[in-house]
Amino acid sequence: MKTRIITAVVGLIVLAGVLFTFDTLVFNLVIAAITLIALHEIYSALGFEKQDWPLLAVLVSYTLLIMLSSYSVCRAMVMPASFLVVLFYAIYLVVRNGVISYQKASGLAMFSGIVIFCFYSFIRLKEMLPVEEYGYDAIFFILLILCFAWGGDTCAYFAGRAFGKHKLCPVVSPKKTVEGAIGGVLGTMVFGVLVTVIYSIAADRMEEFTRSNIGVSMYVIIALLACVAAVLGIYGDLFASVVKRQCGIKDYGTIFPGHGGILDRFDSVMFIAPFVTMVVIAAFYN
Amino acid sequence: MKTRIITAVVGLIVLAGVLFTFDTLVFNLVIAAITLIALHEIYSALGFEKQDWPLLAVLVSYTLLIMLSSYSVCRAMVMPASFLVVLFYAIYLVVRNGVISYQKASGLAMFSGIVIFCFYSFIRLKEMLPVEEYGYDAIFFILLILCFAWGGDTCAYFAGRAFGKHKLCPVVSPKKTVEGAIGGVLGTMVFGVLVTVIYSIAADRMEEFTRSNIGVSMYVIIALLACVAAVLGIYGDLFASVVKRQCGIKDYGTIFPGHGGILDRFDSVMFIAPFVTMVVIAAFYN
Repeated sequence: MKTRIITAVVGLIVLAGVLFTFDTLVFNLVIAAITLIALHEIYSALGFEKQDWPLLAVLVSYTLLIMLSSYSVCRAMVMPASFLVVLFYAIYLVVRNGVISYQKASGLAMFSGIVIFCFYSFIRLKEMLPVEEYGYDAIFFILLILCFAWGGDTCAYFAGRAFGKHKLCPVVSPKKTVEGAIGGVLGTMVFGVLVTVIYSIAADRMEEFTRSNIGVSMYVIIALLACVAAVLGIYGDLFASVVKRQCGIKDYGTIFPGHGGILDRFDSVMFIAPFVTMVVIAAFYN
Repeated sequence: MKTRIITAVVGLIVLAGVLFTFDTLVFNLVIAAITLIALHEIYSALGFEKQDWPLLAVLVSYTLLIMLSSYSVCRAMVMPASFLVVLFYAIYLVVRNGVISYQKASGLAMFSGIVIFCFYSFIRLKEMLPVEEYGYDAIFFILLILCFAWGGDTCAYFAGRAFGKHKLCPVVSPKKTVEGAIGGVLGTMVFGVLVTVIYSIAADRMEEFTRSNIGVSMYVIIALLACVAAVLGIYGDLFASVVKRQCGIKDYGTIFPGHGGILDRFDSVMFIAPFVTMVVIAAFYN
């Protein structure tokens, strides 16, 4: 437990550091680095041999392209590059037929796609809400996403310890209870509204949070968002657990002592990030 | 051989009929129907049980949405729907954990994605090149894609029979030879240019084929396009064969007597269609 807390504190300090680089290219590169570690974790979990490094190499190049797609040169290349990646995948399977299975390679591609999409959401927020126009709104939403994920996890943990009786999904994740999940959802809603109130005061935006000036009803939207996000967090967690179980591993990695790998820590973020990003951009800044 | 030829002739007559509906909603629905049969073939090839029909049901709805995305109502739903499909996939795996593997479901999703993308290209051509503005250019390009795929196959078959000595990829497709592939590429180039000349004369467009008025140099572009397309056709064929081999089946289906299923007949089209569509729209109509 002590290791876990120390890691969490160090992690949060590093996170604050990363957010300082928000408006620079460094931010994109950090996100790219995190994504790449996650992809390597998937690659290892599925038990690919060292010989299959070309599959990982292609994913690395593709990730870098996506994460740098704030720049229009890169953006124009995303579509053709996606097509080339699929072509590469198809021909690689032919070359390595009999050694790796089509399904295993598809598993790598699917999970990697989900993870790239998740982390790209942070960059998308940065692109859509430039600091000159919207102040630190993008950073706020990134923090909100993380609060939804980790706040939800924490609330679920304590609610589960206090009231947990009925197992939620015993085969995949034996420790999760229905009571914990409910506590997680409620806690996430409170957390989300609190964080929003704090940011509103800090940024002096009580009345006019965003361009669309939706005022107090915004808190209702945030609470609803938190409710859905909490459920998505549990989905992401369960999905990551299923893959772990099927691969026969306990953790995806060891980068965070006590917490496991990037995927162990960011599994709840997986579906929350794209969801919140899509809703925020559509609802608040359209 | 006789069944094969009869099927081919009947198939081409049906194709001509379908192209008559080009400018209507019927065309989208026919393409959707073909795609759905292909998806069902993948689903069966991978050996999913009847209980797993929800996975197929979601793919069916998603395909219909994509194929009707000429209509802006549907287009706006593509992104959220894609996200929901992934969410469904994630939760389905959790629910059916221990029964179906994550990799197998990913295999279904990957291959289905490639096939949907392929057939959607035809609809994309229709959308981008409306008849009022560009006459029958879109139909011409659809025919060109099919000529690239099936003309290439045919040339490769006869070139292989006449000169075939060196095996191209014996493990996956024992009958393919390097000589056949070369013949296929050269034949496709000749075919492509011929078809283009015929259309140019028929549509009285020798000088001004498209809005960009690229004149005779267009034939060079078509020949280059044919060359790449022929290679992509071989890729698609090999990819489909790898999956067949790994699934332990001989054909994907029986819908075309003598030719197998949709995927057996359209495997070469798989990568050609998106490639040609992207290049044509970027090079000729930008």
